[in-house]
Amino acid sequence: MSDQTVKFMLGEQDIPTHWVNLMADLPGDAPPPLHPGTQQPAGPDDLTPLFPMALILQEVSAEPRIEIPPPVREAYKLWRPTPLYRARRLERALDTPAHIYYKYEGGSPAGSHKPNTAVPQAYENAAAGIKKLTTETGAGQWGSALSFACMLFGLECEVWMVGSSYDQKPYRRSMMETWGATVHRSPSDVTEAGRSQASHPTGSLGIAISEAVEVAAQNGDTNYSLGSVLNHVLLHQTVIGQEALAQMAMAGEEPDVVVACVGGGSNFGGLTIPFLRRVLRDGARTRFVAAEPSACPTLTRGVYAYDFGDTVGLTPLMPMYTLGHDFVPPPLHAGGLRYHGDSPLVCGLVKAGLVEPRAYRQNETFEAAVRFARTEGIIPAPEPAHAIKAVIDEAEAAREAGEPRVILFGLCGHGNFDMSAYDAYLAGKLEDPEFSEDELNSALASLPEAPALT
Amino acid sequence: MSDQTVKFMLGEQDIPTHWVNLMADLPGDAPPPLHPGTQQPAGPDDLTPLFPMALILQEVSAEPRIEIPPPVREAYKLWRPTPLYRARRLERALDTPAHIYYKYEGGSPAGSHKPNTAVPQAYENAAAGIKKLTTETGAGQWGSALSFACMLFGLECEVWMVGSSYDQKPYRRSMMETWGATVHRSPSDVTEAGRSQASHPTGSLGIAISEAVEVAAQNGDTNYSLGSVLNHVLLHQTVIGQEALAQMAMAGEEPDVVVACVGGGSNFGGLTIPFLRRVLRDGARTRFVAAEPSACPTLTRGVYAYDFGDTVGLTPLMPMYTLGHDFVPPPLHAGGLRYHGDSPLVCGLVKAGLVEPRAYRQNETFEAAVRFARTEGIIPAPEPAHAIKAVIDEAEAAREAGEPRVILFGLCGHGNFDMSAYDAYLAGKLEDPEFSEDELNSALASLPEAPALT
Repeated sequence: MSDQTVKFMLGEQDIPTHWVNLMADLPGDAPPPLHPGTQQPAGPDDLTPLFPMALILQEVSAEPRIEIPPPVREAYKLWRPTPLYRARRLERALDTPAHIYYKYEGGSPAGSHKPNTAVPQAYENAAAGIKKLTTETGAGQWGSALSFACMLFGLECEVWMVGSSYDQKPYRRSMMETWGATVHRSPSDVTEAGRSQASHPTGSLGIAISEAVEVAAQNGDTNYSLGSVLNHVLLHQTVIGQEALAQMAMAGEEPDVVVACVGGGSNFGGLTIPFLRRVLRDGARTRFVAAEPSACPTLTRGVYAYDFGDTVGLTPLMPMYTLGHDFVPPPLHAGGLRYHGDSPLVCGLVKAGLVEPRAYRQNETFEAAVRFARTEGIIPAPEPAHAIKAVIDEAEAAREAGEPRVILFGLCGHGNFDMSAYDAYLAGKLEDPEFSEDELNSALASLPEAPALT
Repeated sequence: MSDQTVKFMLGEQDIPTHWVNLMADLPGDAPPPLHPGTQQPAGPDDLTPLFPMALILQEVSAEPRIEIPPPVREAYKLWRPTPLYRARRLERALDTPAHIYYKYEGGSPAGSHKPNTAVPQAYENAAAGIKKLTTETGAGQWGSALSFACMLFGLECEVWMVGSSYDQKPYRRSMMETWGATVHRSPSDVTEAGRSQASHPTGSLGIAISEAVEVAAQNGDTNYSLGSVLNHVLLHQTVIGQEALAQMAMAGEEPDVVVACVGGGSNFGGLTIPFLRRVLRDGARTRFVAAEPSACPTLTRGVYAYDFGDTVGLTPLMPMYTLGHDFVPPPLHAGGLRYHGDSPLVCGLVKAGLVEPRAYRQNETFEAAVRFARTEGIIPAPEPAHAIKAVIDEAEAAREAGEPRVILFGLCGHGNFDMSAYDAYLAGKLEDPEFSEDELNSALASLPEAPALT
């Protein structure tokens, strides 16, 4: 090991003061979400049963920068700024001329990037007099982040956890309960939506969303909180990319390619949006790679269409790549990537050719994750393992081409709660599900009648 | 939340360049370790079957400062410097005038302070041409730290994990295996020592040490590595206290009391030694509190005597507080505190009245840990939960006395691998073992014939 800087640290004063909103910079007009009943453009009022007005205004804002409320910035200090690392040991192991950097969000109390949006969501709901938040969670990253954030601001928290993850990751449930939350296995029998989906016992994010939305819609002092997909969620996550921009400048390098995994899009958007704005405004030549599971290949094999965000059809119709809202992906360990759709904002960027999606099998992502752990030391969550697989491909391509390449990726969480998956992988017993053309066509049959997207 | 600094960060350049050795500053002459056969003072040569000479020289050094090798300092950059936090939310919840600070070591890849010594130990062994390290581990913190460090320096790693923890924390095993280590449940059937202790199926640190030492002693290219107790281990951990000194200066405060948990003493020594030196040299008036489990009350109820470091009697006789080397503590979740003895250095400080030991029941430490998690956000490992209980007592005493008090404590690891214990605690099902006078007397009967200590 040579005596070189491997970690680029910022100070508390460098935590961003504003979030970056990409809406004003997008090419063309973004198609609006539609009311699920009337199929007319949904306005702020359609969202008031679920969200406080402050978040709704962020959702629809076209302002390029939105100030971070001081109490939110104060709470960010508990784990921000997060470090940027140069992966020198991985570079050497790959014998690549590429320089690999990663922004690590696993140091937050919940172990991922999710508190970046859980905290402002809890804050704005508490400020609006709300007493309880409901939500869904896949692998448990989002549910634990919201439990943590609700604890900070004195809110109750009720979580529907996707059945397959609930069974695989019991300790994520204990974590939520340690912070004071109530956790249900989804589909549950405490909601209409859950009872209607009892025939899908492994559950899905779509089903769990239906359950949480149902309870929030029925109770005046209860709101719903979503951990990804929506504009305001991606907005909150832009603290990641803004810090990474400053840290890449400290390292004296410009990324040629920025890589992140995509489930609903909040990690991807959070890291890439500040870099994307430079591409859109200043003509910077950066590539963007979105990594997803080939068993839930929304961006690579889905269709670009209006679809519901949940399984039952309670949410607005959103313009996105989708596999059909009643698609239930196999029980991947990357629970956070098991979603039939994706953020409309990220989908628009893919549609516009600004973001290149790639899909990977479960086993090859764990192979990449173990390679990373055995060089860099940090054991990644299964979700960013998809990004690592894409990064290794990029670094090997640079070696083949004999050209330098600066790669930045988002290591959005640690794998401490995913060791059963590593155990299975190391024992050669990890499932490696695929997604056939027949399954795809069957899933897409659930697409609702709605205006076409071009 | 008001807009106040809660986290004190240092830069990479502030990682200490030297370790702090307290040996030269101790009052009186420290009693020497004795050879287990001859009972004569053990010299460096007695340790060569187990340790490389560089570590042996650190073990017996009286130099006040020892330089950190550049490759070690380089590896430290992967997670150091670590943050110091002001626990403002806990202070408010306790309604105390005390100011509470904590130094958090849970951000290392292995999740605790243990890599601080695992890295220099792996480095010096690799530099000496050793191919494999053996070790024991309780809760798995140390075993995973050494697995991580061996991976960094290309060494094989073989770990004996205390049976009760092996059963309670399977994912710590997966973590070690992810980094490439081999893990045995102790007592195992692959060593003489393990086979001789088959009647203690829950195991103990003492038994696991015997197994690891046996294998290292029998193989020329294999050395043994200990995660606590010895002088050179505490030495390596002083990076914690040195950083904390600088960070307390950033905060503009002097601690009145420094608190840490004690299992073998490395976390306690690492945090306190730089502060203790100021007491010994400059007459600073700082109190030191060592927190241990009342079910393994080495410092509070043990006797100060020569005893073996392991159960079978392979190690030198060490001057320490001990419960008797064949004492097998009940299967506490704080596996890292289940040790019959303690660091001779820390024991000498207790004997000299410089350190006040306190013992706590398992349930009251989890109550403190949940209180901490529900205010500060970080979920503590069960070991530092003992320190948190002591801190809450100190803060409440300050409130009762109506006086300011600055408290610093070591939060030496996160509880991500201990959620089953939190689960049991929250369900009201956590065992709360005590340690009777009869059990104490029975354990002490195993003390070897050896020169008396005064």
